[in-house]
Amino acid sequence: MNVLIVHAHNEPQSFSSALCQLAEETLQGQGHAVQVSDLYAMNWNPVASAADFAERANPDYLVYALEQREGAKAKTLAADIQGELDKLLWADLVIFNFPIYWFSAPAILKGWFDRVLVSGICYGGKRFYDQGGLTGKQALLSVTLGGREHMFGEGAIHGPLEDMLRPILRGTLAYTGMAVLPPFVAWHVPYIGNDARQDFLRQYQERLQHLQSDQPLAFPRLEQFDERLYPLPR
Amino acid sequence: MNVLIVHAHNEPQSFSSALCQLAEETLQGQGHAVQVSDLYAMNWNPVASAADFAERANPDYLVYALEQREGAKAKTLAADIQGELDKLLWADLVIFNFPIYWFSAPAILKGWFDRVLVSGICYGGKRFYDQGGLTGKQALLSVTLGGREHMFGEGAIHGPLEDMLRPILRGTLAYTGMAVLPPFVAWHVPYIGNDARQDFLRQYQERLQHLQSDQPLAFPRLEQFDERLYPLPR
Repeated sequence: MNVLIVHAHNEPQSFSSALCQLAEETLQGQGHAVQVSDLYAMNWNPVASAADFAERANPDYLVYALEQREGAKAKTLAADIQGELDKLLWADLVIFNFPIYWFSAPAILKGWFDRVLVSGICYGGKRFYDQGGLTGKQALLSVTLGGREHMFGEGAIHGPLEDMLRPILRGTLAYTGMAVLPPFVAWHVPYIGNDARQDFLRQYQERLQHLQSDQPLAFPRLEQFDERLYPLPR
Repeated sequence: MNVLIVHAHNEPQSFSSALCQLAEETLQGQGHAVQVSDLYAMNWNPVASAADFAERANPDYLVYALEQREGAKAKTLAADIQGELDKLLWADLVIFNFPIYWFSAPAILKGWFDRVLVSGICYGGKRFYDQGGLTGKQALLSVTLGGREHMFGEGAIHGPLEDMLRPILRGTLAYTGMAVLPPFVAWHVPYIGNDARQDFLRQYQERLQHLQSDQPLAFPRLEQFDERLYPLPR
């Protein structure tokens, strides 16, 4: 397998960084090819703007997705976007490794989604969910957070973590056609000791060594909807 | 009322920008004081990093929320963060005006949440949801998106929009104690003509003129949970 790890933590010594390194080593140890995009180390620019397009289909009025489509076709996207897009298209598995900020991805990673998941290649028109441009690829979130596990789930104070992560799991990764594996979650990380951290590292390594037995999460399929995307009777 | 509008669109002529301007004019016309943070025009930096702290509680290991707490106390936060934080604390109502990117906020706005909603002031310890640091303030999302209205809701292809926006509505704004009003949504914006856009502008103006009759969305209250944040029997 070709594996891309997109890593987004601002402290190189963080536990999140340790998870990233463990994934790289474990997957390489299994014979996979691994590339890591360390967004902070790369000084990644997360802001989707007019500067992303060397040539503009419409220089007078920016419609970002339209310019993405044209720029991807003409290969005139900004070099940093094209570089990440090439890695993404090379990958069979993409791991997004990050600390939860506001029940979501840090802005530096959100801007990777905004800029790299270009219209016309990753999605577009009726090419989304199981018809998306990235079908055949797998995605895995590896996240750390401050909350305890009992604060998440049905009836818990924050509700199910998967519901909080819905715009990423479903609205982003499944939307582009990727098979989304259940997230790996390390709870309460800023407050736990070394033993608990070692446990999470062991759990993650175990998980990575058996990814082929993981069942992807279930999301809508276009065949359940009509031409105008109204639901068909079941 | 003091109103802060946080605006995040990369095209100054966009319909989203027209909504921003309409809100500014309408609310000023009603005698409210309005400030606008136009994040693209400000060249806002959305990346939460060590550079945000002139002095570090722990220079050897960055825990972002911890440094926020210390920096807010000592008033040593980066000037751009302090400036936005001052506006936020001044405001009675905060409007977040943006195009939906990946069922969420554009990265430039996500980074406003990451950097400006500082620990120790906006939340911290048991100060969240109805006990959050920003209780007494109201929040409103004003969003544009490409999808049609029938693609959202129970059983629809993307499910309810409020579920996609959960990390913002509940996980961010309600978490800090703000009363969150139902979002104003302009659907299918890139594909509609001028008449339909004028309709949305009229609807939004009407909405803004009667905000006092809006019912905030319902979210958890801490009294429903015990000391360890397990749910209490109802």
